[in-house]
Amino acid sequence: MDDRPIGVFDSGIGGLTVVAEIFRQLPGERVVYFGDMARAPYGTKSPETIRRFALEDCAFLLQHRVKAIVVACNTASSVALDAISEKYTLPLVGGKYINLSDHARYIHIREQLDLPLIGVIRPGAKTAVQRTRSGKVGVIGTVGTIRSGAYQRALAALDDHIEIHVQPCPLFVPLAEEGWEDKEATFLIAEEYLSPLKEAEVDVLVLGCTHYPLLKRTIGKVMGPGVGLTDSAEETAREIAHVLKDRGLLNPSHAEPEHEFFVSDLPAQFRKMGERFLGQRLERVSRISLDEEMG
Amino acid sequence: MDDRPIGVFDSGIGGLTVVAEIFRQLPGERVVYFGDMARAPYGTKSPETIRRFALEDCAFLLQHRVKAIVVACNTASSVALDAISEKYTLPLVGGKYINLSDHARYIHIREQLDLPLIGVIRPGAKTAVQRTRSGKVGVIGTVGTIRSGAYQRALAALDDHIEIHVQPCPLFVPLAEEGWEDKEATFLIAEEYLSPLKEAEVDVLVLGCTHYPLLKRTIGKVMGPGVGLTDSAEETAREIAHVLKDRGLLNPSHAEPEHEFFVSDLPAQFRKMGERFLGQRLERVSRISLDEEMG
Repeated sequence: MDDRPIGVFDSGIGGLTVVAEIFRQLPGERVVYFGDMARAPYGTKSPETIRRFALEDCAFLLQHRVKAIVVACNTASSVALDAISEKYTLPLVGGKYINLSDHARYIHIREQLDLPLIGVIRPGAKTAVQRTRSGKVGVIGTVGTIRSGAYQRALAALDDHIEIHVQPCPLFVPLAEEGWEDKEATFLIAEEYLSPLKEAEVDVLVLGCTHYPLLKRTIGKVMGPGVGLTDSAEETAREIAHVLKDRGLLNPSHAEPEHEFFVSDLPAQFRKMGERFLGQRLERVSRISLDEEMG
Repeated sequence: MDDRPIGVFDSGIGGLTVVAEIFRQLPGERVVYFGDMARAPYGTKSPETIRRFALEDCAFLLQHRVKAIVVACNTASSVALDAISEKYTLPLVGGKYINLSDHARYIHIREQLDLPLIGVIRPGAKTAVQRTRSGKVGVIGTVGTIRSGAYQRALAALDDHIEIHVQPCPLFVPLAEEGWEDKEATFLIAEEYLSPLKEAEVDVLVLGCTHYPLLKRTIGKVMGPGVGLTDSAEETAREIAHVLKDRGLLNPSHAEPEHEFFVSDLPAQFRKMGERFLGQRLERVSRISLDEEMG
Protein backbone atom coordinates (compact mmCIF):
# COMPACT_ATOMS: atom_id res chain seq x y z
CA MET A 1 0.00 0.00 0.00
CA ASP A 2 1.59 3.19 -1.15
CA ASP A 3 0.34 6.78 -1.17
CA ARG A 4 3.09 8.14 -3.46
CA PRO A 5 1.80 9.60 -6.73
CA ILE A 6 1.88 8.04 -10.19
CA GLY A 7 4.18 10.11 -12.45
CA VAL A 8 2.88 10.70 -15.97
CA PHE A 9 4.58 12.65 -18.74
CA ASP A 10 3.87 13.64 -22.31
CA SER A 11 5.19 16.16 -24.83
CA GLY A 12 2.19 18.34 -24.00
CA ILE A 13 -1.52 17.77 -23.58
CA GLY A 14 -2.14 14.45 -25.36
CA GLY A 15 -1.19 12.43 -22.28
CA LEU A 16 -4.22 13.87 -20.51
CA THR A 17 -6.37 11.29 -22.32
CA VAL A 18 -4.40 8.67 -20.36
CA VAL A 19 -4.79 10.66 -17.13
CA ALA A 20 -8.56 10.80 -17.70
CA GLU A 21 -8.59 6.98 -17.78
CA ILE A 22 -6.40 6.73 -14.66
CA PHE A 23 -8.90 9.01 -12.87
CA ARG A 24 -11.74 6.76 -14.03
CA GLN A 25 -10.16 3.38 -13.28
CA LEU A 26 -8.05 4.33 -10.25
CA PRO A 27 -9.94 7.12 -8.48
CA GLY A 28 -7.89 6.81 -5.29
CA GLU A 29 -4.54 7.38 -6.98
CA ARG A 30 -2.72 10.71 -7.00
CA VAL A 31 -1.17 11.83 -10.30
CA VAL A 32 1.80 14.12 -10.92
CA TYR A 33 1.78 15.10 -14.60
CA PHE A 34 4.44 16.81 -16.65
CA GLY A 35 3.65 18.24 -20.11
CA ASP A 36 6.68 19.47 -22.04
CA MET A 37 4.73 22.21 -23.88
CA ALA A 38 7.84 24.33 -24.55
CA ARG A 39 9.34 21.62 -26.76
CA ALA A 40 6.15 20.00 -28.11
CA PRO A 41 5.45 18.21 -30.34
CA TYR A 42 7.77 15.21 -30.10
CA GLY A 43 6.25 13.33 -33.06
CA THR A 44 8.14 15.28 -35.72
CA LYS A 45 11.55 14.97 -34.04
CA SER A 46 14.41 12.49 -34.18
CA PRO A 47 14.71 9.49 -31.83
CA GLU A 48 17.88 10.94 -30.34
CA THR A 49 16.21 14.27 -29.48
CA ILE A 50 13.08 12.56 -28.15
CA ARG A 51 15.21 10.32 -25.90
CA ARG A 52 17.04 13.34 -24.50
CA PHE A 53 13.75 15.13 -23.77
CA ALA A 54 12.15 12.01 -22.26
CA LEU A 55 15.05 11.45 -19.87
CA GLU A 56 14.76 15.03 -18.66
CA ASP A 57 11.00 14.64 -18.24
CA CYS A 58 11.55 11.52 -16.12
CA ALA A 59 14.20 13.20 -14.03
CA PHE A 60 11.66 15.89 -13.19
CA LEU A 61 9.00 13.35 -12.18
CA LEU A 62 11.49 11.45 -10.02
CA GLN A 63 11.97 14.58 -7.94
CA HIS A 64 8.33 14.14 -6.94
CA ARG A 65 8.89 10.69 -5.40
CA VAL A 66 6.60 8.93 -7.86
CA LYS A 67 5.91 5.21 -7.40
CA ALA A 68 5.63 4.52 -11.15
CA ILE A 69 6.40 6.32 -14.38
CA VAL A 70 3.85 6.37 -17.19
CA VAL A 71 5.11 7.49 -20.59
CA ALA A 72 1.74 8.79 -21.85
CA CYS A 73 3.11 9.67 -25.26
CA ASN A 74 3.27 7.19 -28.10
CA THR A 75 6.30 8.83 -29.70
CA ALA A 76 8.34 8.77 -26.48
CA SER A 77 7.12 5.24 -25.68
CA SER A 78 8.24 4.18 -29.16
CA VAL A 79 11.84 5.33 -28.90
CA ALA A 80 12.73 6.14 -25.29
CA LEU A 81 11.52 3.29 -23.04
CA ASP A 82 14.82 1.43 -23.12
CA ALA A 83 16.83 4.57 -22.45
CA ILE A 84 14.62 5.46 -19.48
CA SER A 85 14.75 1.96 -18.14
CA GLU A 86 18.51 1.87 -18.48
CA LYS A 87 19.03 5.21 -16.80
CA TYR A 88 16.39 5.24 -14.06
CA THR A 89 14.32 2.17 -13.46
CA LEU A 90 16.61 -0.84 -13.68
CA PRO A 91 16.80 -2.76 -10.44
CA LEU A 92 20.35 -1.83 -9.53
CA VAL A 93 21.99 -2.85 -6.27
CA GLY A 94 20.55 -0.65 -3.52
CA GLY A 95 22.29 2.09 -1.62
CA LYS A 96 24.02 3.55 -4.67
CA TYR A 97 23.45 7.04 -6.01
CA ILE A 98 22.52 7.68 -9.61
CA ASN A 99 22.95 10.88 -11.51
CA LEU A 100 19.55 12.29 -12.42
CA SER A 101 20.81 14.90 -14.83
CA ASP A 102 24.08 15.89 -16.33
CA HIS A 103 24.35 18.63 -13.77
CA ALA A 104 24.83 16.72 -10.59
CA ARG A 105 21.41 16.36 -9.06
CA TYR A 106 21.27 13.08 -7.19
CA ILE A 107 18.61 10.85 -5.84
CA HIS A 108 18.91 7.85 -3.61
CA ILE A 109 18.65 4.68 -5.68
CA ARG A 110 16.95 2.72 -2.91
CA GLU A 111 13.72 4.61 -3.58
CA GLN A 112 13.91 4.06 -7.32
CA LEU A 113 14.71 0.40 -7.07
CA ASP A 114 12.65 -1.47 -9.64
CA LEU A 115 10.31 1.44 -10.33
CA PRO A 116 7.56 0.31 -12.73
CA LEU A 117 7.79 1.97 -16.14
CA ILE A 118 4.68 1.81 -18.33
CA GLY A 119 4.44 2.94 -21.94
CA VAL A 120 1.38 3.19 -24.17
CA ILE A 121 2.47 0.94 -27.05
CA ARG A 122 2.20 -2.55 -25.60
CA PRO A 123 -1.23 -2.12 -23.98
CA GLY A 124 -2.70 -0.86 -27.27
CA ALA A 125 -1.05 -3.61 -29.28
CA LYS A 126 -2.34 -6.25 -26.88
CA THR A 127 -5.95 -5.16 -27.27
CA ALA A 128 -5.62 -4.97 -31.05
CA VAL A 129 -4.40 -8.57 -31.19
CA GLN A 130 -7.27 -9.69 -28.94
CA ARG A 131 -9.89 -7.86 -30.99
CA THR A 132 -8.92 -8.63 -34.59
CA ARG A 133 -10.76 -11.45 -36.37
CA SER A 134 -9.28 -11.03 -39.82
CA GLY A 135 -5.75 -10.75 -38.44
CA LYS A 136 -5.30 -7.46 -40.29
CA VAL A 137 -4.46 -4.58 -37.96
CA GLY A 138 -3.93 -0.92 -38.87
CA VAL A 139 -1.84 1.51 -36.82
CA ILE A 140 -1.87 5.29 -37.15
CA GLY A 141 0.48 7.66 -35.31
CA THR A 142 3.01 10.45 -35.63
CA VAL A 143 5.90 10.18 -38.07
CA GLY A 144 8.20 9.43 -35.11
CA THR A 145 6.03 6.59 -33.80
CA ILE A 146 5.43 4.92 -37.16
CA ARG A 147 9.03 5.28 -38.31
CA SER A 148 10.30 3.73 -35.06
CA GLY A 149 8.57 0.44 -35.86
CA ALA A 150 7.59 0.06 -32.20
CA TYR A 151 3.97 -0.97 -32.88
CA GLN A 152 5.08 -3.29 -35.65
CA ARG A 153 7.48 -5.01 -33.22
CA ALA A 154 4.97 -5.11 -30.35
CA LEU A 155 2.24 -6.63 -32.55
CA ALA A 156 4.59 -9.17 -34.12
CA ALA A 157 5.87 -10.19 -30.69
CA LEU A 158 2.30 -10.88 -29.53
CA ASP A 159 1.25 -12.76 -32.67
CA ASP A 160 3.53 -13.19 -35.64
CA HIS A 161 0.65 -14.03 -37.97
CA ILE A 162 -0.81 -10.53 -37.70
CA GLU A 163 -0.75 -8.53 -40.94
CA ILE A 164 0.21 -4.96 -40.00
CA HIS A 165 -0.60 -1.80 -41.99
CA VAL A 166 0.78 1.51 -40.74
CA GLN A 167 0.13 5.14 -41.66
CA PRO A 168 1.62 8.33 -40.18
CA CYS A 169 -0.99 11.12 -39.86
CA PRO A 170 0.98 14.31 -39.07
CA LEU A 171 -1.99 16.68 -39.45
CA PHE A 172 -4.15 14.92 -36.85
CA VAL A 173 -2.30 16.46 -33.87
CA PRO A 174 -2.71 20.09 -34.99
CA LEU A 175 -6.33 19.38 -36.04
CA ALA A 176 -7.13 17.98 -32.58
CA GLU A 177 -5.39 20.89 -30.86
CA GLU A 178 -7.23 23.41 -33.05
CA GLY A 179 -10.51 21.75 -32.02
CA TRP A 180 -11.48 20.95 -35.62
CA GLU A 181 -12.82 17.48 -34.84
CA ASP A 182 -15.98 17.78 -36.91
CA LYS A 183 -14.96 19.97 -39.84
CA GLU A 184 -15.30 18.89 -43.46
CA ALA A 185 -11.54 19.52 -43.97
CA THR A 186 -10.74 17.09 -41.16
CA PHE A 187 -12.93 14.47 -42.81
CA LEU A 188 -11.13 14.95 -46.16
CA ILE A 189 -7.73 14.71 -44.49
CA ALA A 190 -8.80 11.57 -42.61
CA GLU A 191 -10.07 10.04 -45.87
CA GLU A 192 -6.73 10.68 -47.54
CA TYR A 193 -4.65 9.27 -44.69
CA LEU A 194 -6.88 6.29 -43.99
CA SER A 195 -7.77 5.09 -47.50
CA PRO A 196 -4.77 2.69 -47.76
CA LEU A 197 -5.86 1.11 -44.46
CA LYS A 198 -9.44 0.76 -45.69
CA GLU A 199 -8.21 -0.83 -48.89
CA ALA A 200 -6.08 -3.23 -46.85
CA GLU A 201 -9.32 -4.24 -45.07
CA VAL A 202 -8.00 -3.97 -41.51
CA ASP A 203 -10.69 -4.76 -38.94
CA VAL A 204 -8.92 -3.09 -36.01
CA LEU A 205 -7.26 0.32 -36.08
CA VAL A 206 -4.89 1.33 -33.26
CA LEU A 207 -5.07 5.06 -32.49
CA GLY A 208 -1.33 5.23 -31.83
CA CYS A 209 -1.20 8.80 -30.55
CA THR A 210 -2.78 10.19 -27.40
CA HIS A 211 -4.28 13.07 -29.41
CA TYR A 212 -6.28 10.84 -31.71
CA PRO A 213 -9.14 9.87 -29.37
CA LEU A 214 -10.43 13.43 -29.94
CA LEU A 215 -10.84 12.58 -33.65
CA LYS A 216 -12.46 9.20 -32.94
CA ARG A 217 -15.83 10.16 -34.46
CA THR A 218 -14.32 11.31 -37.76
CA ILE A 219 -11.90 8.38 -37.94
CA GLY A 220 -14.77 5.98 -37.22
CA LYS A 221 -16.92 7.57 -39.91
CA VAL A 222 -14.15 7.16 -42.49
CA MET A 223 -13.24 3.59 -41.50
CA GLY A 224 -16.84 2.41 -41.22
CA PRO A 225 -18.70 0.44 -38.55
CA GLY A 226 -16.85 -2.83 -39.24
CA VAL A 227 -13.55 -1.51 -37.92
CA GLY A 228 -12.81 -1.39 -34.19
CA LEU A 229 -10.83 1.60 -32.92
CA THR A 230 -8.33 0.83 -30.18
CA ASP A 231 -7.53 3.73 -27.92
CA SER A 232 -4.39 3.09 -25.89
CA ALA A 233 -5.47 5.35 -22.99
CA GLU A 234 -7.99 2.86 -21.66
CA GLU A 235 -5.66 -0.12 -22.03
CA THR A 236 -2.74 1.72 -20.50
CA ALA A 237 -4.74 2.64 -17.40
CA ARG A 238 -5.76 -1.02 -17.09
CA GLU A 239 -2.08 -2.01 -17.30
CA ILE A 240 -1.15 0.56 -14.63
CA ALA A 241 -3.84 -0.82 -12.31
CA HIS A 242 -2.57 -4.33 -12.93
CA VAL A 243 1.09 -3.48 -12.26
CA LEU A 244 0.35 -1.46 -9.11
CA LYS A 245 -1.84 -4.19 -7.71
CA ASP A 246 0.70 -6.84 -8.57
CA ARG A 247 3.44 -5.04 -6.67
CA GLY A 248 1.32 -3.94 -3.73
CA LEU A 249 1.61 -0.30 -4.72
CA LEU A 250 -2.08 0.65 -4.84
CA ASN A 251 -3.28 3.49 -2.66
CA PRO A 252 -5.99 2.26 -0.27
CA SER A 253 -7.07 5.77 0.77
CA HIS A 254 -10.51 6.98 -0.22
CA ALA A 255 -9.65 10.65 0.24
CA GLU A 256 -9.96 12.87 -2.84
CA PRO A 257 -6.39 12.84 -4.20
CA GLU A 258 -4.69 16.16 -4.96
CA HIS A 259 -3.25 15.89 -8.43
CA GLU A 260 -0.53 18.19 -9.68
CA PHE A 261 0.16 19.31 -13.22
CA PHE A 262 3.45 20.84 -14.34
CA VAL A 263 4.22 22.32 -17.75
CA SER A 264 7.33 23.81 -19.33
CA ASP A 265 5.36 26.67 -20.91
CA LEU A 266 2.45 28.89 -19.88
CA PRO A 267 -0.17 27.07 -17.76
CA ALA A 268 -3.01 29.13 -19.32
CA GLN A 269 -2.53 27.60 -22.78
CA PHE A 270 -2.21 24.10 -21.32
CA ARG A 271 -5.32 24.57 -19.24
CA LYS A 272 -7.36 25.93 -22.14
CA MET A 273 -6.59 23.09 -24.56
CA GLY A 274 -6.07 20.44 -21.92
CA GLU A 275 -9.56 20.51 -20.48
CA ARG A 276 -10.94 19.11 -23.74
CA PHE A 277 -8.45 16.23 -23.48
CA LEU A 278 -9.00 15.57 -19.78
CA GLY A 279 -12.76 16.06 -19.92
CA GLN A 280 -12.76 18.07 -16.68
CA ARG A 281 -11.32 21.21 -15.15
CA LEU A 282 -7.56 21.41 -14.72
CA GLU A 283 -6.60 22.67 -11.29
CA ARG A 284 -3.12 23.22 -9.83
CA VAL A 285 -1.13 23.73 -13.01
CA SER A 286 2.35 25.13 -12.39
CA ARG A 287 5.03 26.19 -14.77
CA ILE A 288 8.57 24.93 -14.39
CA SER A 289 11.65 25.60 -16.44
CA LEU A 290 13.38 22.34 -17.29
CA ASP A 291 16.63 24.27 -17.76
CA GLU A 292 16.52 25.57 -14.22
CA GLU A 293 15.17 22.36 -12.72
CA MET A 294 17.66 20.19 -14.52
CA GLY A 295 20.58 22.58 -14.83
CA MET B 1 33.53 45.92 -47.10
CA ASP B 2 33.16 42.86 -44.95
CA ASP B 3 33.39 39.14 -45.73
CA ARG B 4 31.85 37.93 -42.49
CA PRO B 5 28.62 35.95 -42.92
CA ILE B 6 25.05 37.11 -42.34
CA GLY B 7 23.54 35.15 -39.45
CA VAL B 8 19.96 33.99 -39.94
CA PHE B 9 17.83 31.99 -37.53
CA ASP B 10 14.35 30.53 -37.40
CA SER B 11 12.48 27.95 -35.36
CA GLY B 12 13.04 25.49 -38.19
CA ILE B 13 12.71 25.59 -41.94
CA GLY B 14 10.41 28.58 -42.59
CA GLY B 15 13.31 31.04 -42.50
CA LEU B 16 14.69 29.38 -45.63
CA THR B 17 12.18 31.44 -47.66
CA VAL B 18 14.09 34.50 -46.41
CA VAL B 19 17.44 32.86 -47.20
CA ALA B 20 16.23 32.14 -50.75
CA GLU B 21 15.63 35.87 -51.19
CA ILE B 22 19.03 36.77 -49.68
CA PHE B 23 20.65 34.40 -52.22
CA ARG B 24 18.69 36.10 -55.01
CA GLN B 25 19.25 39.71 -54.01
CA LEU B 26 22.72 39.42 -52.43
CA PRO B 27 24.49 36.60 -54.31
CA GLY B 28 27.92 37.56 -52.96
CA GLU B 29 26.94 37.23 -49.30
CA ARG B 30 27.69 34.22 -47.15
CA VAL B 31 24.89 32.95 -44.87
CA VAL B 32 25.14 31.04 -41.60
CA TYR B 33 21.69 29.66 -40.79
CA PHE B 34 20.39 28.13 -37.61
CA GLY B 35 17.08 26.22 -37.54
CA ASP B 36 15.91 25.20 -34.07
CA MET B 37 14.15 22.04 -35.29
CA ALA B 38 14.35 20.30 -31.89
CA ARG B 39 12.09 22.92 -30.29
CA ALA B 40 10.00 23.93 -33.33
CA PRO B 41 7.44 25.33 -33.77
CA TYR B 42 7.68 28.65 -31.90
CA GLY B 43 4.26 29.94 -33.02
CA THR B 44 2.28 27.99 -30.44
CA LYS B 45 4.47 28.94 -27.48
CA SER B 46 4.51 31.76 -24.93
CA PRO B 47 6.45 35.03 -25.44
CA GLU B 48 8.69 34.20 -22.51
CA THR B 49 9.66 30.79 -23.91
CA ILE B 50 10.17 32.20 -27.42
CA ARG B 51 12.44 34.93 -26.04
CA ARG B 52 14.55 32.39 -24.19
CA PHE B 53 14.91 30.25 -27.32
CA ALA B 54 15.67 33.28 -29.54
CA LEU B 55 18.44 34.49 -27.23
CA GLU B 56 20.06 31.06 -27.35
CA ASP B 57 19.75 30.97 -31.14
CA CYS B 58 21.48 34.36 -31.38
CA ALA B 59 24.22 33.30 -29.02
CA PHE B 60 24.94 30.39 -31.34
CA LEU B 61 25.10 32.64 -34.42
CA LEU B 62 27.41 35.08 -32.63
CA GLN B 63 29.95 32.30 -32.21
CA HIS B 64 30.22 32.35 -36.01
CA ARG B 65 31.34 36.00 -36.13
CA VAL B 66 28.29 37.13 -38.09
CA LYS B 67 28.11 40.75 -39.27
CA ALA B 68 24.32 40.99 -38.89
CA ILE B 69 21.53 38.97 -37.31
CA VAL B 70 18.35 38.25 -39.25
CA VAL B 71 15.41 36.95 -37.24
CA ALA B 72 13.76 35.05 -40.11
CA CYS B 73 10.79 33.99 -38.03
CA ASN B 74 7.72 36.14 -37.59
CA THR B 75 6.93 34.76 -34.14
CA ALA B 76 10.43 35.46 -32.79
CA SER B 77 10.50 38.86 -34.53
CA SER B 78 7.17 39.67 -32.88
CA VAL B 79 8.21 39.06 -29.30
CA ALA B 80 12.02 38.79 -29.04
CA LEU B 81 13.61 41.67 -30.99
CA ASP B 82 13.87 43.95 -27.96
CA ALA B 83 15.30 41.21 -25.79
CA ILE B 84 17.93 40.35 -28.41
CA SER B 85 18.80 43.96 -28.94
CA GLU B 86 19.13 44.53 -25.22
CA LYS B 87 21.31 41.49 -24.66
CA TYR B 88 23.51 41.40 -27.72
CA THR B 89 23.31 44.21 -30.20
CA LEU B 90 23.08 47.45 -28.26
CA PRO B 91 26.05 49.72 -28.90
CA LEU B 92 27.67 49.39 -25.49
CA VAL B 93 30.98 50.99 -24.62
CA GLY B 94 33.70 48.96 -26.32
CA GLY B 95 36.21 46.70 -24.64
CA LYS B 96 33.70 45.16 -22.21
CA TYR B 97 32.71 41.52 -22.08
CA ILE B 98 29.12 40.36 -22.28
CA ASN B 99 27.76 37.06 -21.09
CA LEU B 100 26.55 35.01 -24.06
CA SER B 101 24.84 32.36 -22.04
CA ASP B 102 24.13 31.76 -18.40
CA HIS B 103 27.06 29.40 -18.26
CA ALA B 104 29.97 31.74 -18.71
CA ARG B 105 30.70 31.71 -22.40
CA TYR B 106 32.00 35.12 -23.27
CA ILE B 107 32.57 37.02 -26.42
CA HIS B 108 34.39 40.25 -26.87
CA ILE B 109 31.91 43.07 -27.13
CA ARG B 110 34.12 45.06 -29.50
CA GLU B 111 33.20 42.70 -32.31
CA GLN B 112 29.49 42.90 -31.63
CA LEU B 113 29.38 46.65 -31.29
CA ASP B 114 26.26 47.94 -33.00
CA LEU B 115 25.55 44.72 -34.83
CA PRO B 116 22.58 45.21 -37.16
CA LEU B 117 19.49 43.24 -36.12
CA ILE B 118 16.78 42.73 -38.73
CA GLY B 119 13.35 41.19 -38.14
CA VAL B 120 10.67 40.26 -40.67
CA ILE B 121 7.76 42.30 -39.29
CA ARG B 122 8.63 45.88 -40.25
CA PRO B 123 9.65 45.14 -43.86
CA GLY B 124 6.35 43.34 -44.52
CA ALA B 125 4.31 46.04 -42.81
CA LYS B 126 6.06 48.76 -44.87
CA THR B 127 5.16 47.12 -48.18
CA ALA B 128 1.59 46.56 -47.09
CA VAL B 129 1.17 50.23 -46.28
CA GLN B 130 2.69 51.20 -49.62
CA ARG B 131 0.47 48.81 -51.58
CA THR B 132 -2.95 49.31 -50.04
CA ARG B 133 -5.41 51.61 -51.79
CA SER B 134 -8.44 51.02 -49.63
CA GLY B 135 -6.45 51.42 -46.43
CA LYS B 136 -7.71 48.01 -45.25
CA VAL B 137 -4.89 45.56 -44.55
CA GLY B 138 -5.17 41.95 -43.43
CA VAL B 139 -2.48 40.07 -41.52
CA ILE B 140 -2.29 36.30 -41.05
CA GLY B 141 0.25 34.51 -38.86
CA THR B 142 0.78 32.06 -36.01
CA VAL B 143 -1.11 32.45 -32.75
CA GLY B 144 2.08 33.85 -31.18
CA THR B 145 2.57 36.49 -33.87
CA ILE B 146 -1.04 37.67 -33.99
CA ARG B 147 -1.45 37.68 -30.22
CA SER B 148 1.73 39.75 -29.78
CA GLY B 149 0.17 42.66 -31.70
CA ALA B 150 3.53 43.30 -33.41
CA TYR B 151 2.07 43.74 -36.92
CA GLN B 152 -0.77 45.86 -35.56
CA ARG B 153 1.80 48.16 -33.89
CA ALA B 154 4.14 48.24 -36.91
CA LEU B 155 1.31 49.09 -39.31
CA ALA B 156 -0.16 51.75 -37.02
CA ALA B 157 3.27 53.33 -36.56
CA LEU B 158 3.66 53.64 -40.34
CA ASP B 159 0.15 54.99 -40.96
CA ASP B 160 -2.39 55.40 -38.21
CA HIS B 161 -5.30 55.55 -40.65
CA ILE B 162 -4.81 51.94 -41.73
CA GLU B 163 -7.68 49.63 -40.80
CA ILE B 164 -6.10 46.36 -39.65
CA HIS B 165 -7.75 42.91 -39.67
CA VAL B 166 -5.83 39.98 -38.20
CA GLN B 167 -6.33 36.22 -38.23
CA PRO B 168 -4.20 33.44 -36.71
CA CYS B 169 -3.97 30.36 -38.98
CA PRO B 170 -2.41 27.59 -36.86
CA LEU B 171 -2.99 24.81 -39.40
CA PHE B 172 -1.08 26.54 -42.22
CA VAL B 173 2.37 25.61 -40.83
CA PRO B 174 1.70 21.85 -40.60
CA LEU B 175 -0.07 21.93 -44.00
CA ALA B 176 2.96 23.59 -45.62
CA GLU B 177 5.34 21.15 -43.93
CA GLU B 178 3.23 18.20 -45.01
CA GLY B 179 3.42 19.46 -48.61
CA TRP B 180 -0.37 19.72 -48.91
CA GLU B 181 -0.34 23.05 -50.76
CA ASP B 182 -2.87 22.07 -53.42
CA LYS B 183 -5.23 19.74 -51.59
CA GLU B 184 -8.97 20.33 -51.33
CA ALA B 185 -8.70 20.17 -47.51
CA THR B 186 -6.17 23.00 -47.55
CA PHE B 187 -8.53 25.10 -49.66
CA LEU B 188 -11.39 24.48 -47.20
CA ILE B 189 -9.19 25.38 -44.24
CA ALA B 190 -7.99 28.54 -46.00
CA GLU B 191 -11.59 29.50 -46.78
CA GLU B 192 -12.55 29.14 -43.14
CA TYR B 193 -9.57 31.14 -41.81
CA LEU B 194 -9.72 33.85 -44.47
CA SER B 195 -13.45 34.50 -44.78
CA PRO B 196 -13.48 37.24 -42.09
CA LEU B 197 -10.69 39.05 -43.98
CA LYS B 198 -12.59 38.75 -47.28
CA GLU B 199 -15.70 40.12 -45.62
CA ALA B 200 -13.66 43.01 -44.24
CA GLU B 201 -12.63 43.76 -47.86
CA VAL B 202 -8.90 44.06 -47.22
CA ASP B 203 -6.99 44.75 -50.44
CA VAL B 204 -3.58 43.70 -49.11
CA LEU B 205 -2.89 40.56 -47.09
CA VAL B 206 0.41 40.22 -45.21
CA LEU B 207 1.66 36.61 -45.11
CA GLY B 208 2.99 37.02 -41.59
CA CYS B 209 4.75 33.67 -41.29
CA THR B 210 7.72 32.43 -43.28
CA HIS B 211 5.89 29.17 -44.03
CA TYR B 212 2.99 30.84 -45.78
CA PRO B 213 4.62 31.65 -49.15
CA LEU B 214 4.30 27.92 -49.87
CA LEU B 215 0.52 28.28 -49.64
CA LYS B 216 0.44 31.46 -51.75
CA ARG B 217 -1.51 29.87 -54.60
CA THR B 218 -4.29 28.58 -52.36
CA ILE B 219 -4.44 31.78 -50.30
CA GLY B 220 -4.58 33.82 -53.54
CA LYS B 221 -7.36 31.65 -54.91
CA VAL B 222 -9.43 32.15 -51.75
CA MET B 223 -8.80 35.91 -51.46
CA GLY B 224 -9.35 36.60 -55.16
CA PRO B 225 -7.32 38.59 -57.73
CA GLY B 226 -8.11 42.00 -56.18
CA VAL B 227 -6.06 41.28 -53.04
CA GLY B 228 -2.26 41.72 -53.05
CA LEU B 229 -0.28 39.16 -51.03
CA THR B 230 2.74 40.58 -49.22
CA ASP B 231 5.48 38.09 -48.56
CA SER B 232 7.93 39.38 -45.98
CA ALA B 233 10.89 37.35 -47.32
CA GLU B 234 11.40 39.59 -50.33
CA GLU B 235 11.06 42.80 -48.31
CA THR B 236 13.31 41.56 -45.55
CA ALA B 237 16.11 40.73 -48.00
CA ARG B 238 15.74 44.22 -49.46
CA GLU B 239 16.06 45.68 -45.95
CA ILE B 240 19.16 43.57 -45.27
CA ALA B 241 20.76 44.83 -48.51
CA HIS B 242 19.93 48.39 -47.55
CA VAL B 243 21.34 48.12 -44.01
CA LEU B 244 24.54 46.37 -45.11
CA LYS B 245 25.16 48.93 -47.86
CA ASP B 246 24.42 51.79 -45.51
CA ARG B 247 27.01 50.60 -42.99
CA GLY B 248 29.65 49.56 -45.52
CA LEU B 249 29.21 45.89 -44.61
CA LEU B 250 28.57 44.43 -48.08
CA ASN B 251 30.87 41.73 -49.37
CA PRO B 252 32.55 42.84 -52.59
CA SER B 253 33.84 39.36 -53.46
CA HIS B 254 32.41 37.60 -56.49
CA ALA B 255 33.51 34.16 -55.33
CA GLU B 256 30.74 31.59 -54.78
CA PRO B 257 30.07 31.93 -51.04
CA GLU B 258 30.08 28.82 -48.86
CA HIS B 259 26.92 28.88 -46.81
CA GLU B 260 26.49 26.87 -43.65
CA PHE B 261 23.31 25.44 -42.16
CA PHE B 262 23.01 24.27 -38.57
CA VAL B 263 20.05 22.54 -36.98
CA SER B 264 19.26 21.33 -33.48
CA ASP B 265 17.77 18.06 -34.76
CA LEU B 266 18.54 15.59 -37.54
CA PRO B 267 19.89 17.26 -40.73
CA ALA B 268 18.13 14.66 -42.94
CA GLN B 269 14.65 15.84 -41.96
CA PHE B 270 15.65 19.51 -42.33
CA ARG B 271 17.17 18.84 -45.73
CA LYS B 272 14.16 16.90 -46.98
CA MET B 273 11.56 19.52 -46.10
CA GLY B 274 13.87 22.52 -46.41
CA GLU B 275 14.64 22.12 -50.08
CA ARG B 276 11.03 22.95 -50.92
CA PHE B 277 11.35 26.15 -48.90
CA LEU B 278 14.76 27.15 -50.24
CA GLY B 279 14.02 26.14 -53.81
CA GLN B 280 17.44 24.51 -54.21
CA ARG B 281 19.61 21.79 -52.76
CA LEU B 282 20.76 22.15 -49.16
CA GLU B 283 24.43 21.43 -48.74
CA ARG B 284 26.54 21.53 -45.58
CA VAL B 285 23.88 20.94 -42.96
CA SER B 286 25.31 20.13 -39.52
CA ARG B 287 23.63 19.16 -36.34
CA ILE B 288 24.45 20.94 -33.12
CA SER B 289 23.11 20.47 -29.62
CA LEU B 290 22.13 23.83 -28.15
CA ASP B 291 22.50 22.34 -24.68
CA GLU B 292 26.10 21.45 -25.30
CA GLU B 293 26.87 24.60 -27.28
CA MET B 294 25.26 26.89 -24.77
CA GLY B 295 25.76 24.98 -21.54
